Parts: sequence; C-alpha cells; structure tokens
Amino acid sequence: MSEKEFLYQTRLKIFREADKKEGKKVEKVFSYIECHRDEYIKLLKDFCNQPSVSAENIGMEEMAALVKKTLVSLGAETEQIETFGYPIIYGEINQGKERVLTFYNHYDVQPVDPLDQWKTDPFESTIIDGKFFARGCADNKGSMLSRICAVDAYQKVYGKLPLNIKFIIEGEEEVGSPHLKKFSEKYPKKLRTNGIIWEGGSKNINGSLQIGLGVKGLCYVELYARGANDDLHSSNAAIIENPAWRLIWALSTLKNEKDEILIDGFYDTIKQPTQEDMEYLENIIYEEEVMKKSMGIKSFINNLTSVELKKKLLYEPTCNICGINSGYIGKGEKTVLPSSAKAKIDFRLVYNQKPDDIFSLLRKHLDNHGFSDIEIVYISGVNPYLTDSNSLIAKIVIKNVERIYKMPPVIYRNIAATSPMSVLCESTNIPAVLYGVNNDESNIHAPNENIYVKDYLNGIKLTTTVFHEFAKYCNSTLSN
Amino acid sequence: MSEKEFLYQTRLKIFREADKKEGKKVEKVFSYIECHRDEYIKLLKDFCNQPSVSAENIGMEEMAALVKKTLVSLGAETEQIETFGYPIIYGEINQGKERVLTFYNHYDVQPVDPLDQWKTDPFESTIIDGKFFARGCADNKGSMLSRICAVDAYQKVYGKLPLNIKFIIEGEEEVGSPHLKKFSEKYPKKLRTNGIIWEGGSKNINGSLQIGLGVKGLCYVELYARGANDDLHSSNAAIIENPAWRLIWALSTLKNEKDEILIDGFYDTIKQPTQEDMEYLENIIYEEEVMKKSMGIKSFINNLTSVELKKKLLYEPTCNICGINSGYIGKGEKTVLPSSAKAKIDFRLVYNQKPDDIFSLLRKHLDNHGFSDIEIVYISGVNPYLTDSNSLIAKIVIKNVERIYKMPPVIYRNIAATSPMSVLCESTNIPAVLYGVNNDESNIHAPNENIYVKDYLNGIKLTTTVFHEFAKYCNSTLSN
Repeated sequence: MSEKEFLYQTRLKIFREADKKEGKKVEKVFSYIECHRDEYIKLLKDFCNQPSVSAENIGMEEMAALVKKTLVSLGAETEQIETFGYPIIYGEINQGKERVLTFYNHYDVQPVDPLDQWKTDPFESTIIDGKFFARGCADNKGSMLSRICAVDAYQKVYGKLPLNIKFIIEGEEEVGSPHLKKFSEKYPKKLRTNGIIWEGGSKNINGSLQIGLGVKGLCYVELYARGANDDLHSSNAAIIENPAWRLIWALSTLKNEKDEILIDGFYDTIKQPTQEDMEYLENIIYEEEVMKKSMGIKSFINNLTSVELKKKLLYEPTCNICGINSGYIGKGEKTVLPSSAKAKIDFRLVYNQKPDDIFSLLRKHLDNHGFSDIEIVYISGVNPYLTDSNSLIAKIVIKNVERIYKMPPVIYRNIAATSPMSVLCESTNIPAVLYGVNNDESNIHAPNENIYVKDYLNGIKLTTTVFHEFAKYCNSTLSN
Repeated sequence: MSEKEFLYQTRLKIFREADKKEGKKVEKVFSYIECHRDEYIKLLKDFCNQPSVSAENIGMEEMAALVKKTLVSLGAETEQIETFGYPIIYGEINQGKERVLTFYNHYDVQPVDPLDQWKTDPFESTIIDGKFFARGCADNKGSMLSRICAVDAYQKVYGKLPLNIKFIIEGEEEVGSPHLKKFSEKYPKKLRTNGIIWEGGSKNINGSLQIGLGVKGLCYVELYARGANDDLHSSNAAIIENPAWRLIWALSTLKNEKDEILIDGFYDTIKQPTQEDMEYLENIIYEEEVMKKSMGIKSFINNLTSVELKKKLLYEPTCNICGINSGYIGKGEKTVLPSSAKAKIDFRLVYNQKPDDIFSLLRKHLDNHGFSDIEIVYISGVNPYLTDSNSLIAKIVIKNVERIYKMPPVIYRNIAATSPMSVLCESTNIPAVLYGVNNDESNIHAPNENIYVKDYLNGIKLTTTVFHEFAKYCNSTLSN
C-alpha cells in the first residue's frame, strides 16, 4: 500500500464513522479523487493516446472498444449500438432509483491538420507545467472522463450511486452526429432522463467556470465548381472558364465585407434575443484586448466591442469558409488552369434556423445569381437548441460551482459553438447543461489542444457534487 | 553491322558520289536520321527519365550535367554558366562561318502534380501506339533534342555544318526565367546571331505545323490574406475576420463574370492588333466543337466563336487563378476558421504590357478597394515579344515546312503562351521563330504529357533543312 493509499484509507475510516452520524458527504469522494489522481490522469492519457479521428476514420474501432471496456469496468450495463457510421456506446448504471442523470459525450476528435504547428505529438499525451497536451483532451475526452471518474470515485467510496446514471457516448460529433437522430428515434427509453450534463465546456479568461444552456446549430456544405476534364496550360485561360473564378464569384455573393449574409431569407426565422437573454451577456467577460493579443488580430469584425461583440458571438449566425482549394498551391510558379475548385462552408445557426432550410435557401440563392453550375453537397446539419434556464439541473449546476472553484460561474444562455443537443433533447424538451474541464486557451479544433490537470480533477469533483445534490432535490416525473 | 546500318552505309556511298556532281543534299541527312531513329529515341528517353522540376528543385543538377555531356559529345564548346538559380548550358559549334543560328531551349519541366491522373510514370518514358509519354517530352525536351539530333546527323553525314550554331539551354523557363536577363546582359557576344529557333511548338488538330512569331508575356504573383495566429474553432467566425473571405472578396474585384479585368489601367498600354495581325487569324484553325468535346466543356468564355475566339486566345491578356488554398480541404467535416489564405495568379500579357507595371497596378487596385491588408508577392515576370514577320529566318522556316510535312504551316503572329523571347531578343531585335515536335493534345503542364515519335523525327528533319537552307541565303551582318 502506497503512502497516499494508506492516508486515504485512514481518512476513509474516519469518514465512515462520521457517516453514521451525519449522512453521506461528498467531501469524502473528493479525498478519494485526490488520492487517485495519478490513476485518473493515466486514464486520460490512455484515452488521448488512442487516435479517434472520425473525419478520417483513424482509430475509431479501437477507441469505441476502449470506451466500452471502461464503462463495463465501471459496472455499467454497456451496449455498443451500431449505426451506419461509428457506434454509439451506451451505458446504464441502474440503482433502482427513479431519478436519472445522463451524460452525453463523444469519443471522436478533430483531425490534427496542420500537424507541423503542433509542439508535441498530438497522440502522445504530454504534461508540461501542469498542462496536458493532446488532440481531444479538451474536445472532449477530458470532460467525458471527468464524469466517468466521478462515478467511479463515488462508487468506490459509497458502493452505490444516489441515482441512476446513463452514458450516451457517440463517435460522430465532430462530423455532425449524422446517426444520433436515428438512435434517438429508435431508443426513446434510453433518452428518458431528468437532465443531461452535456459534452464539455471551459473556464473564461478570469478562471470562472462557464455554463451553457443552449447551443448553436450547424449546416455544413461543400461547394464544387467544375471546368475542363483535366488541368490545362494556363494560356487557355483566355477562352476556357476557370472553375476557381466561378467559385470565387459565387462565394462573393454569399456575404459582404460587413459580414452580412446575403442569402435571401437567411435571417427570417431567427428568434431575436429577449431582454433576459441580453442580461446574461452582461456577466459574460470577453477580454477583448487580451483575446486580440493572443490571436494576433487588430480588431474584431466591424470593429465591434462590448455587448455588441458578445451579442454577435453568441446570438448571431455565421457563414464561414472552413477551407477552399483549387489548382496548384505548392511553391514556385506553375501556370495551370485548374479543372475544379472546392470550398467547405459551415453556417452556425441560431434559434430557430434549420439546416435543411438553409441548404434550400443557399441553392435558390446560387441559382438566382447565375450560379446553377455550382454543385452543393450537404455534409451535415443540426438544429440549434435552448434549454429551460429554470430547470432543476441548471440550478443545481449553477449553485455548486462556487463550492469547487471558489468563484461563481458565468452563464451562457447560448454558446457560440454547436453540439447536437437538439437531437437528444428536442422531442421531450429535456434540460441540458453544458460545462467541462477546458480553459480559455484550450485550442480546441486547433494545434496544441490542452487542458490543465487541475481543471480535470476539479471537473471530476464538480460532477460528483452535481449528481450527489441533484439526487437530493429531484422529484422524478419520469414514467417507466 | 545491323541491316539498317548496312542499308544506310550503302545509300551514303551513292550520295557521296552524287555530292561531287551536284553539291550537298539534305536528303542524305534524312536517311541517316531514319537509320538512327532508335538511337535518337533512346536519347529522348534518357532525357525524359531524368526528372528536372525547377519549381520543386528535383533532379536539376543531374539534368544540367546530362545536357552538358550531350553538347560536348556533339563537339560543341560547352560552358555551364552558373546563375543564382539553375545554370544555363551554353554551347557553340564554331565552323568559322559568318552566319550564326541559335537554338533556345530549356531543360527544366513542370511539376507532375496531380500525379494520380497520370496513366504512366511521368519519369519513366513509355511509348504506346507510337505516342511517347513522359513529363517534359513536349515541353520541351523533345524539341530541344530534335535540334541536337539535327546537328548530330548533319555532322555525321557531312563532317561540318554550313554555319555556326549556338545553343542556349536554360533551366528556369518553367519558373519564369529569373536569371536569363542577367545572362543576356553579361554575355552579349553569346547572344549575337542571325536568328533564333525558339523553344518548341505543336501541330494543330489537322496536322499542320504551327509556327510562332511572337509570345505573350507573364506576370506571376501570389496573394496572401492573414487572420489570427493559429487556425481557430469556427464558432469564432462570428467575430474574427476569416482571411479566406478577405481573399475571396479581394479576388472578386479583379475580374468580372464577363472576363473583363477590372484593374485600373490594365489594358491601357496594349498595342491593338493590326489589319495584318487579324488576317493571320483567318488561317488558324481552332476546331471549336472538337476542342469543347475533348476538354469536356459546353462553351468558351462569353460564348465566343470563330475569329473573336481566336482573337481573344492569341491577342488578349488574361488574369488566371493557378491555385487557391486555405483551411481544411480534406474529407469530412472540420469546422475551422483558417489563419491564412493564399492564391497564385498568372497574368498573360500582350504587347506592350510590362509585368512590373501590372504588379504596381494590382497593388494600387487592391489598396483602392480597401484591401491593403492583402499581401502581394511578385514571383516572376517577362515581357511579351513580337518578332519581325519578314525576317529571313521566319521565311526560311515557313518555306521548308511543306517539304517535310507535305502541308503548309499555320502562322501564329502571337501565341497564347509565354516564353522569355524578349529577354534574349528585345535589346537587338533578333528575329525568333518558334516551332517544335508537339501535337494538339500534348498535355503540356498537365498529366499524360506526350508527343508522337513520328513528329519527333520530323522535327529533327525540319531543323536540319532549316539550317541547311538558312546557311545558303543568309548574308550575315554580324560584327565580331
């Protein structure tokens, strides 16, 4: 028995005595977590060292197996639910309680490209000065494991959980969760819950934990322009249409330099922010000067600042070029007339825009502007979602943050990013709350993705507290 | 002695007898060429199997050495003239004559990208049904060797050449000949000549040899837009400028959908085609339906046809996107806000546009349109050039084509492509004539580059005839 383990066992004995007098206390679990921190960090390393890039089909099978094995060892009844894409790992720890709390996470990660900008191997977890570097540690293996470890620690200390727990861990979040809807339709019982702790989240620049009560939707498309059968010598450019020019002209009609999206009807269905929504913005810190410096930019779009800046970030949709490519882009001079051109675009949508509608509007727009030759391929889409800000789970999370972090949380009525909340929650209006273990410079979707080890351990503690407290107050209204 | 060699020696004996009576006849050299065709094809294979991609610095040293060795074995006084880039191989066969004919060629080739569209290995010469496939066989190792072999054959048959020959073979034509000007300024004596046979050329769709008497110029630039330090999660697109959008908006101001270049002053210096220039167009065949079918396009730019189409192709400048790149362009969904965007653009220039002026006009245009943030990098430039269409070398080439090809040539007052003719010819107004061994589907700068073996052999014969005849009529006016 290690010295730490000995200390823990000693403390546990004392706590057990106390239990008899004053009931179960979550602080005991905190002690267990501290004592077993190396084990939990090791687990995160194992998870991050296993590549799982859904967009490129790298390591997905191995990752799904690792998630499954981990839930099984937690004592969950675990199913690997096959889809037409990557499987969903579903786990349930049924303690015979009426109350249910669900954790939604994903085991896939973003591609590592551009690899040359990584300072460490993205699939070899490296801790430097208390910071844990690896692709996926922030988005969202760290948050996922913080929940698994919370359940583990609670069970190790108290044997039983105070409520039933469900895990829904999918493998396609980074490619738009194309099969989650099918899952939600096929297994409505598995969705039944009193609340969902959603995916992940981060601290702000001041170290306050951010809590999200809504997400943007997404419509992801590819645009193609096609010219001659083959690349041609560029002397032909005088008489043969260049698809790169076609694509550029088409794209330039979608948005103007004021960042106004010019697609007819694009903004029509949007529910404008309420007075209450606008009030949430006031507590949100966006350190403009620090952010500008850290990103190396001179100003924000349209020189926005303050509330207007936050409003645009959180409550407005986007039309963003994720990538564009045509012809020769290597070094030196190659005089070529390309045969095709391609762009990848994501629209972030706000309540109540629908990706299918946006796709139709885009098609109509291009046709109306003389670009019926531009092909659009629908890659993925998800509706935006707003949770009930007065739900119990939202209140419990908000209330308990200060206990762990010694600072109140900052509440985001809507976050700037997308998650398939609507897919699991929309049909029965389940309240979902988003928080996690990231910091304000976690570089998600980018090189040098990272989290602080300390945030990971606090994340475990917070989740422990959340289900401990939620179990106390929840009057379940779930039918079987 | 092979049967072919025996036949050749027998014929040679008969010709030698005839010489004494009627003077040297070029037909004897043709016999030699036919007899040694395998040797000359082998030489072309050796040249093409040696990669020499100047843009990517692949195989350049080895290629220069091979060219040098070949000229030396031809009996030329050969110099490898070092530059800040790749060396120029200069060769001179001085027979003590006053007349000089110069061959300008280049030993570098275009990159092979996109490699997956090649049906054969680009650097392993392959002959299929009389067609020779390899990167560089058309542009322009075939034409270069047709001249070297012509000199070789003539010398083998007659021992001496009827005039002095100079070879200027550079290694940077495909990257805009950045050091040829320095060479021309440093070695004016090496430029001294009565005419230049320039680079290469092709047949038209009907099999008529095309002769060029002028070339377009070029201005090749790269445009860069820069955003945040790193790629960001695309949820930031609501407030952080996307450099891909900046580049697209900037590019969309350069040219409209009618293919009109919108840069202020771009067309101002152009010398409009004369009546004579327009008459040349009439004999030029551009098989519109065949070309459209072969390239898989429905129409030409602006639905042009006939003389207007040819006029645009040959006498008008271009603004062409050779390549554009930003962000993630792999498969699947990656939601990223790119940190930079890049485009490669070539402008084909016509008499009397200058690349330096175009660069300045482009900078001014972007500044005036609010795009002073877009960085322009000047990659290369060369002036357009028009040769004297009444020069002796032009007349000799035109006159002798029918002898070899049994069809009259088609004369291009100006070709659609670029070559650094101005660099060697502009200062002393040297007449330069362009022809070569390519066909109308040689795919230069593209996958599956090819020439017909028969065209290669005819190219050797034509050049033999050209210097044989030129020597007869040229009254040199060169001073030493």
